[in-house]
Amino acid sequence: MELSLNTATVRKQWNLAHIIDGCARHGIRGISPWRDQVSAMGLSNAASAIKANNLTVTGLCRGGFFTANDWRDDNRRAIEEAHELRAQCLVLVVGGLPPGSKDLGGARNRVKEGIAAILPEARKAGVPLAIEPLHPMQAAERACVNTLEQALDICDALGDGIGIAVDVYHVWWDPKLEAQIRRAGKRVLAYHICDWLVPTRDLLNDRGMMGDGVIDLRLIRSWVQAAGYAGFQEVEIFSERWWSRDADEVLQICKERAA
Amino acid sequence: MELSLNTATVRKQWNLAHIIDGCARHGIRGISPWRDQVSAMGLSNAASAIKANNLTVTGLCRGGFFTANDWRDDNRRAIEEAHELRAQCLVLVVGGLPPGSKDLGGARNRVKEGIAAILPEARKAGVPLAIEPLHPMQAAERACVNTLEQALDICDALGDGIGIAVDVYHVWWDPKLEAQIRRAGKRVLAYHICDWLVPTRDLLNDRGMMGDGVIDLRLIRSWVQAAGYAGFQEVEIFSERWWSRDADEVLQICKERAA
Repeated sequence: MELSLNTATVRKQWNLAHIIDGCARHGIRGISPWRDQVSAMGLSNAASAIKANNLTVTGLCRGGFFTANDWRDDNRRAIEEAHELRAQCLVLVVGGLPPGSKDLGGARNRVKEGIAAILPEARKAGVPLAIEPLHPMQAAERACVNTLEQALDICDALGDGIGIAVDVYHVWWDPKLEAQIRRAGKRVLAYHICDWLVPTRDLLNDRGMMGDGVIDLRLIRSWVQAAGYAGFQEVEIFSERWWSRDADEVLQICKERAA
Repeated sequence: MELSLNTATVRKQWNLAHIIDGCARHGIRGISPWRDQVSAMGLSNAASAIKANNLTVTGLCRGGFFTANDWRDDNRRAIEEAHELRAQCLVLVVGGLPPGSKDLGGARNRVKEGIAAILPEARKAGVPLAIEPLHPMQAAERACVNTLEQALDICDALGDGIGIAVDVYHVWWDPKLEAQIRRAGKRVLAYHICDWLVPTRDLLNDRGMMGDGVIDLRLIRSWVQAAGYAGFQEVEIFSERWWSRDADEVLQICKERAA
């Protein structure tokens, strides 16, 4: 699989312009930028630089957060940006519980309705939506879609133009992982890699570099490929440890470990 | 529901003898001791004190860890102790990945085989086994059974004498929670309560007191009751914060919040 760099991986060392240069310099052919970085660089500048360097945009991070108040406008803008960047998908981190709420079922209904509401615009823009189930430890704060099965049930209900992003960090533990990847088939729109460290010291920013943890990446990759996915594998590491390292060194290690 | 105290809740303040006295003093009619505390007090002393105070032993924590080397002897002893204490069940924390392993499927097979191996002895001793699915964030280190569905699939395969422990902390996020509790029916052998804090600062020891987090405890309790569970609700809070408080105060607050 070809390698893509999710820009969060070196977001504390480099801005987006530096990251685009870095990808080109290291022979990394894919990139998946975060919208705050795109915004800081300027959308058309970012699109031009990515095109000039012939990088494939494997995803735009992120749309979603359907339990926030401004979800509709924000997702509309995200779809436009994904279109402008020619992103292969818009990744949806769907949002958790609204502040003060314990109504998880209600939040999940709002998410389904929100995705249904933006899907026609995404289809019109030619931007596939990729629901990314997040680890159950993020259910309250970031995403109340927490398994591939749950995400695929939503996809089944909504039809074309929507699929899933498989991030090993979020789903590696799932007893139904192989079965649900098989079920997903061509609806796997993105494949994200990193590793689960033992011990894990922080719920958000202690992800591991591939090979430093306990995830059987080769096995999961084989399942994703068997499902028909022929895209990039995208490195996405949120880690105070790796954010403190030299970014060129980080990219070099990503390439070695993803091989 | 009547209240039971899992002894881990005040394990840093009191030894088991103190906890038994505390339960009696506060009118808490159930107790669920950990084996290290039982061992420190002496098994027959613990059994006598519990009986003298007329406490129901809602569970013994814990058997399991089938991926460790001494699993067979350790589980045999756990069953004997549960029998001696007249525990309503032996809680199984099944164990995670063996050191250095990434073979999660293999670990899960070992767990199934281990449970099958000890079940005849548990039946003979009249000790129901309760598989406790642990939160997916514990899959590597403590338990590779991570959903009620997975636990119930094991129960289905093994027949009588085995069920599940439903701990809200581990399962509250599960999109299939209501359906799987319904499926479990009378196989719900224990019901553990606490709360999920936002933010959660530690993967093990940052559980919340009921009411301080985002779990809809009334809703989940209603599902457990609808499934036919008529036992105790057992407070189990691993928390540096609550371990630093006066234990009598902790028990008083547990009673108020569980009401």
